[in-house]
Amino acid sequence: MKTLNVSLGERSYPIYIGLGLLKQSELFKPWITGKSVFVVTNTTVGPLYSQSLIQTISNDAKSVHEIVLPDGESYKDWITLQKIFDALLTYGADRKSVLIALGGGVIGDMVGFAAASFMRGIRFIQVPTTLLAQVDSSVGGKTGINHPLGKNMIGAFHQPVAVIADLDTLKSLPPRELSAGLAEVIKHGAIADGKFFDWIEAHRQELLDCDSNAMSHAVERSCEIKSAVVAADEKESGIRAILNFGHTFGHAIESGLGYGEWLHGEAVGCGMVMAADLSSRLGYLQTEEAGRIKKLIAAMNLPDSAPKLGNSRFFDLMRIDKKSEGGEIRYITLERIGKAKIEAVDDAIVDQVLTTNQAK
Amino acid sequence: MKTLNVSLGERSYPIYIGLGLLKQSELFKPWITGKSVFVVTNTTVGPLYSQSLIQTISNDAKSVHEIVLPDGESYKDWITLQKIFDALLTYGADRKSVLIALGGGVIGDMVGFAAASFMRGIRFIQVPTTLLAQVDSSVGGKTGINHPLGKNMIGAFHQPVAVIADLDTLKSLPPRELSAGLAEVIKHGAIADGKFFDWIEAHRQELLDCDSNAMSHAVERSCEIKSAVVAADEKESGIRAILNFGHTFGHAIESGLGYGEWLHGEAVGCGMVMAADLSSRLGYLQTEEAGRIKKLIAAMNLPDSAPKLGNSRFFDLMRIDKKSEGGEIRYITLERIGKAKIEAVDDAIVDQVLTTNQAK
Repeated sequence: MKTLNVSLGERSYPIYIGLGLLKQSELFKPWITGKSVFVVTNTTVGPLYSQSLIQTISNDAKSVHEIVLPDGESYKDWITLQKIFDALLTYGADRKSVLIALGGGVIGDMVGFAAASFMRGIRFIQVPTTLLAQVDSSVGGKTGINHPLGKNMIGAFHQPVAVIADLDTLKSLPPRELSAGLAEVIKHGAIADGKFFDWIEAHRQELLDCDSNAMSHAVERSCEIKSAVVAADEKESGIRAILNFGHTFGHAIESGLGYGEWLHGEAVGCGMVMAADLSSRLGYLQTEEAGRIKKLIAAMNLPDSAPKLGNSRFFDLMRIDKKSEGGEIRYITLERIGKAKIEAVDDAIVDQVLTTNQAK
Repeated sequence: MKTLNVSLGERSYPIYIGLGLLKQSELFKPWITGKSVFVVTNTTVGPLYSQSLIQTISNDAKSVHEIVLPDGESYKDWITLQKIFDALLTYGADRKSVLIALGGGVIGDMVGFAAASFMRGIRFIQVPTTLLAQVDSSVGGKTGINHPLGKNMIGAFHQPVAVIADLDTLKSLPPRELSAGLAEVIKHGAIADGKFFDWIEAHRQELLDCDSNAMSHAVERSCEIKSAVVAADEKESGIRAILNFGHTFGHAIESGLGYGEWLHGEAVGCGMVMAADLSSRLGYLQTEEAGRIKKLIAAMNLPDSAPKLGNSRFFDLMRIDKKSEGGEIRYITLERIGKAKIEAVDDAIVDQVLTTNQAK
């Protein structure tokens, strides 16, 4: 097991990464002893891991309740969130209660926002069971739900007290979800560590095969990169925005198609191809480097061209991105593989990118 | 005009108290210059003050939109909150946009929570137009909405960037709402300043008449007391809970009758009578002092006996209060007028309080 630390002063917390962690009661114990605990999961993940987790914590927790939500990005809304609040109040949760988010990014984001908002803030533990959640969404305290007019528009910054990433849970992942998670792994190399990007290229088959050694390194290095960025800028007033590489285009794709049509990681994968193309047209990323990104995205079985939404619809969707200010869209671009920057870009150049990268 | 300061490090903010402040553009200017501004109000307050406020800020703001919500505690829910988010997204709000809460406590709490949650947090200004909001709810950063199973159960700590309390707006208040606000004024004397309590007793008629001098002092001293408590314990891990004097019983009354039946201040007024009786039965508050509190509550035209909910229903409702821990109810009691404490109390004594203070 590897232990990382997210350094945020009194809000610091550990990330545990390894095999068989769901069975290690000592990882959970510090946060749950004598507390009422609510394990929040979904109809897919719950049947696989809930019983095991509940058994692990049942000796230490005062009481344990399970809350099972429907599965999918299309349920990341107020109605589903309300089910969490209903259960918390029905079963007598109080300010000392602890929520455990057992699932992927949707569960983690919703449970985190429930923890942020219930009685103005209670504690929660992230137990990510998808690669995407382990390498990205469970770390950093971004929580929230979607609004019909924009993704993750309603939410809070609320850090977990611990992230417990059991690599065993990745073995049950459908290949499509594994690939979606690899998109965020690639992102971390692309924005912050060229050598890690090289390593991903060299180990793409082991990663697609979910080899434990390869996966362990991919999760660790991703969490290290993300933790460092979050520690430097918790509330995204500056540098943290580079973690959104591929997300400006990606969110527009997800929103334009309707949430859930493409997986988040698929949209981000395609978004990175577009952002790399943009970086290349702006003159700093070499064409060959943009090509490496596109090739790696395709090799991971991720879409490398966007659905045909039309350029003006794309612009409209990107303008309501949270990074936009006064209607000006902020793009994350690459100076080179391993170094990202944040900038506004002339619409005419983006227009070329949109034209080139939409499916014919 | 009087200026107070709420000292919370980088989250510090000014409270302006005086006549005619809605017309003073320089008070708003620092927060809104070049920003898109959303004035959120209700169907009662909007027609009285929106136009005047919008005119005051229109030269400085980049754009101004008005959002008008239905009036009343029964609308302090997700459905109404959603109307704010809908409007923000429809009119292109971004992270630099500023919300202005123009109204009473319900508007302030909802707009504050909308600001806390929209894009994970944007800025907002409190412009309280009721006495209750000016002396209590607009200061301190508690925001939120009700859940069918409990008041203010969903929310956030999110401080405003400024509180602008225009005493002129109190002149349009119905007498019942003025009295409800006076309950919180009395509370501040009862928990923290015996001399202020004496002053309220001596000036009760001027206060009921909404005399500007008396009201100015009542608002200032209340805000001073509340600011000092909030500065000492922003997130209510300890001492801040004394501000909930009368609220444990009061919330049970509001929730038991259905939100909106009694005004919040009416429930708190009655709750203080009950909490004072409790303090007296516990042996520290003199019977005569408890009598002074009851007499002052009645003199302010506030209810001094509770609706007949039944003792066991009262206990059930109080157990889901946010201050409860592990099913144990935390009461705010008075050692004397001017000094409060927080404690658990034997159910048998509370039972006597409930029996004595419910309407026959």
